[in-house]
Amino acid sequence: MGKGKLVAQGSHASIEAYLRTAKQKPEWTTRWLAEGMKKIVLKAESKEMLIQLFEEARRELPVTLIQDAGHTQVEPGTITALGIGPAPEVELDKFISKYKLL
Amino acid sequence: MGKGKLVAQGSHASIEAYLRTAKQKPEWTTRWLAEGMKKIVLKAESKEMLIQLFEEARRELPVTLIQDAGHTQVEPGTITALGIGPAPEVELDKFISKYKLL
Repeated sequence: MGKGKLVAQGSHASIEAYLRTAKQKPEWTTRWLAEGMKKIVLKAESKEMLIQLFEEARRELPVTLIQDAGHTQVEPGTITALGIGPAPEVELDKFISKYKLL
Repeated sequence: MGKGKLVAQGSHASIEAYLRTAKQKPEWTTRWLAEGMKKIVLKAESKEMLIQLFEEARRELPVTLIQDAGHTQVEPGTITALGIGPAPEVELDKFISKYKLL
């Protein structure tokens, strides 16, 4: 993916994650907005890693897996990103602390 | 900026833009959500270009200029991104058609 595509997928995951959490855990989005909207961008080593993290985190947190429509650069249906939270840091850390920043 | 920082700033601009438009022009965000949340990521050649586009677009569209808190990589208060819309394509094109994709 080029840089623009990377930003677009991250933005897509962020907005989907925000909307999902606002429905499922509105107290978490309210707190996140009040505290400066912190984001953590992690590197996905593979599609398998994204799916594994999705399966693990979905048991406890709002998660959203992003599939690209495939208009540009990638095949339709390609999994490009995973959005988790917004959530309290202690809840997030259980799932993401082993992964590297992008 | 590293790639992770780039994605974080784009995501920040996207969510701020979404929230601002949802307040100022809720019919535009409703339509945008229904139509697949299209995003266009442009390259800012300079801070001056970002500020100029901000000043032009704010006359007609919801816009949001992102300043970084400066915890990592850049000085506090650095302007890192500009979010415009969501808005109808014909409205957006008046302001962005002359710029290149990132």
